[in-house]
Amino acid sequence: MFSEQNYTMLCDFYQLTMGNGYFMTDYADKTAYFDLFFRRVPDNGGYAVCAGLEQAIEYIENLRFDADDIDFLRSKGIFSERFLDYLRNFKFEGDVFAVPEGTPVFPYEPLITVRAPAIQAQLIETMLLLLINHQSLIATKASRIVRAANGRAISEFGSRRAQGASGAILGARAAYIGGCAGTACVISDKLYNVPATGTMAHSWVQMFDSELEAFKKYCEVYPDSTTLLVDTYNVLKSGVPNAIKAFDEVLKPLGKRPKGIRLDSGDIAYLSVEARKMLDEAGYPDCKIVASNSLDEYIITDLLSQGAKIDLFGVGERLITASSEPVFGGVYKLCAVEENGMITPKIKISENVAKITNPHFKKLYRIFDNKTGKAEADLLCVHDEEIDSTKPIELFDPNYTWKRKTFSDFTAKELQVPVFKDGKRVYNPPKLDDIRDYCKKQLDTLWESVLRFENPHNYYVDLSQKLWDIKQDLLNQKNK
Amino acid sequence: MFSEQNYTMLCDFYQLTMGNGYFMTDYADKTAYFDLFFRRVPDNGGYAVCAGLEQAIEYIENLRFDADDIDFLRSKGIFSERFLDYLRNFKFEGDVFAVPEGTPVFPYEPLITVRAPAIQAQLIETMLLLLINHQSLIATKASRIVRAANGRAISEFGSRRAQGASGAILGARAAYIGGCAGTACVISDKLYNVPATGTMAHSWVQMFDSELEAFKKYCEVYPDSTTLLVDTYNVLKSGVPNAIKAFDEVLKPLGKRPKGIRLDSGDIAYLSVEARKMLDEAGYPDCKIVASNSLDEYIITDLLSQGAKIDLFGVGERLITASSEPVFGGVYKLCAVEENGMITPKIKISENVAKITNPHFKKLYRIFDNKTGKAEADLLCVHDEEIDSTKPIELFDPNYTWKRKTFSDFTAKELQVPVFKDGKRVYNPPKLDDIRDYCKKQLDTLWESVLRFENPHNYYVDLSQKLWDIKQDLLNQKNK
Repeated sequence: MFSEQNYTMLCDFYQLTMGNGYFMTDYADKTAYFDLFFRRVPDNGGYAVCAGLEQAIEYIENLRFDADDIDFLRSKGIFSERFLDYLRNFKFEGDVFAVPEGTPVFPYEPLITVRAPAIQAQLIETMLLLLINHQSLIATKASRIVRAANGRAISEFGSRRAQGASGAILGARAAYIGGCAGTACVISDKLYNVPATGTMAHSWVQMFDSELEAFKKYCEVYPDSTTLLVDTYNVLKSGVPNAIKAFDEVLKPLGKRPKGIRLDSGDIAYLSVEARKMLDEAGYPDCKIVASNSLDEYIITDLLSQGAKIDLFGVGERLITASSEPVFGGVYKLCAVEENGMITPKIKISENVAKITNPHFKKLYRIFDNKTGKAEADLLCVHDEEIDSTKPIELFDPNYTWKRKTFSDFTAKELQVPVFKDGKRVYNPPKLDDIRDYCKKQLDTLWESVLRFENPHNYYVDLSQKLWDIKQDLLNQKNK
Repeated sequence: MFSEQNYTMLCDFYQLTMGNGYFMTDYADKTAYFDLFFRRVPDNGGYAVCAGLEQAIEYIENLRFDADDIDFLRSKGIFSERFLDYLRNFKFEGDVFAVPEGTPVFPYEPLITVRAPAIQAQLIETMLLLLINHQSLIATKASRIVRAANGRAISEFGSRRAQGASGAILGARAAYIGGCAGTACVISDKLYNVPATGTMAHSWVQMFDSELEAFKKYCEVYPDSTTLLVDTYNVLKSGVPNAIKAFDEVLKPLGKRPKGIRLDSGDIAYLSVEARKMLDEAGYPDCKIVASNSLDEYIITDLLSQGAKIDLFGVGERLITASSEPVFGGVYKLCAVEENGMITPKIKISENVAKITNPHFKKLYRIFDNKTGKAEADLLCVHDEEIDSTKPIELFDPNYTWKRKTFSDFTAKELQVPVFKDGKRVYNPPKLDDIRDYCKKQLDTLWESVLRFENPHNYYVDLSQKLWDIKQDLLNQKNK
């Protein structure tokens, strides 16, 4: 259903004015190379988790302008009929290379590289950015929250606060890639197999004449999966005692054990400790305590350090909107132009050094130490460079070139894989569970210092000597 | 296209477990009343702008479980066949009352009230919240940014950083309701008539052999709508001089005037002043200056106070994600239950006083002073109360009941309108332009002190004596 949605018209208007412009100036057939990359990790984290590629692939495969799209564009009165004719038969005919979903990635790395006729490469900018920015944002945030919970499960609960339907649906998918155990969002389970679970809201408790009656009814309907929400009136005076009573009176005679209770307000550290004691004393040490209510990685860390007795966290708005920093600032920049087989590297200069781009059609390698298995640095090369891992390799900081380090016993793994070749998909997206497992394994290759929440160690993304020289040349040229 | 999307399965799993539970305990036919309201205005603002009702209506009209939805739910192994049978023929049969889109609204006001069989009222919770939360968030943020620009136009530019496709598409719609002049998002124009515009990206400039050539080509293709992006290399040394050269060499001979130049980086206050001088001296005082680059209401206020010469702002990620506070915390709470024509008010208690709900089926009035036309306060009453505006009315602060104020020459306007009656839509959503105009006019009824960015005056939402008494009774009862 969502995979059949046509989002071709979800583009910035300037993609079309430029497209028409390339067409009218005979630049349409020039081949352009664009890199999709980001400049900093949200929340000052040490790494990001890239996600959204599967949807980007679906988007590219579904690209088409319908007759009513053409009519709409004609009504704007600025597009040539030749261009509109071209759009009528528009399809993507280029190459795409991308870093697989779930890979830990770092600033300035091309997560996606597009090689296509200028007009086509340009048109897909907005939607590629939107899809990769959104899911990478949520996968990265989820990864932080999951690590804070230190082995306890995190469930994504935020649909109602998501920024639009796709924010909820694909947000749950991205959260799962980042390590969440599941979601509350039913449609994300149906469409993407993100396991959905849920029990009751306060309204269930309010609907009945008493809390005890509400709990007993729930136990009767769901004797095998009873989790009771205990904070509608008063957690310790009424919620937990009534829950225990309902377990005793309804589940016990059936020989069933309760699954859990849920706390959704108040001082969760204190309440969970007291509730744990009450449950243990009543003979329910196996009854889990679920906590929700405006949680994120910082509050979870605090709660656990204060000895909170929580087995599972439900995380809502702060995960589904990545509220502490709700933007993943991916950009899509021209890095080269090709004519008659000749590739000319292109650069964007800026007063702001952080905004200067890495020119040329590139390759991205990750250098793993063979002894530890750990990722030591990433390396950007020109597309035709090969790394010879039988010889030591010397990497240097692209800004402070005297900072150098030599690796000898290493494996260089190319991070991008071919996704489209001449407009044909040549890549099968992995299953979601496999992406999630892959993400977990790849995170294990990062040193703890890179994973740290506060002030993480800077992971190096270096340039090869050849690429560095080309960049310097272009900078010197443009500043003449 | 989007209006035909079936989002019935975009719900929290617990809506279905509760639904099945109501069904199995014969509570399904009890009539429930739910209020959708929020507790605080984002960014500590003085008011919010509600939006999203049109999409909420479409959602309710499209509610249905398809055969594959039923199959999916059966596979979970916890739903009764009777319940699945019921879902097969599910439709909404209740009443909905709502505050029209574009209305300035305040905490604790029911933006939507649903009266329906418990199971139906419950099922629509997640999606109603999602739609209203998202668009109200963006409309409110847009309203702030538009006011900061003090009459200058704001264009929404953020699609690429939106949290999902609907975040972009409906975000542009909400931003327009909040007062933006248009968007860059083409599909929002096609679907919702939000005017879309756009010119060029840095890639256009980079694609050609020189900046001047890129500018001249653009002037040739779009002589009637030329806006040139002047910061690809160096704004004052190359961008503006090349733009002027292109205007002189291409547009002038055609008798055309340029529309504008755009600044997208650097010190925009300084650059705009210098660029303005250069354009004026070159004979282009009518050429507008457009600014973009991480803008929001705070930066725009600063830029203008520093004398920046900007005519139009393009605002991206900070608007489309409302990044300073990306969550509109709407909730959906049971306020009454009806059986055999008897309405029983319901309350949710909390240690946190801000989380205690206003019970009962209610009416919401706005009190306008007849002399000034200004909105003075809002009043929540029990559903069967009428306000007699021929007599003075005394309002009191629901927390500090000794704070009282009497209004004599006033008009009381009911804010909610009937939207569904027995499952049938009885309301035609206004056209988007009319919503935007209505919003502007309604904002004019608020005192400046309520509109203030920092520390705005608290607008009162009072309870009638009758409603206040009912609430106190319930609080005393539950705390016994």
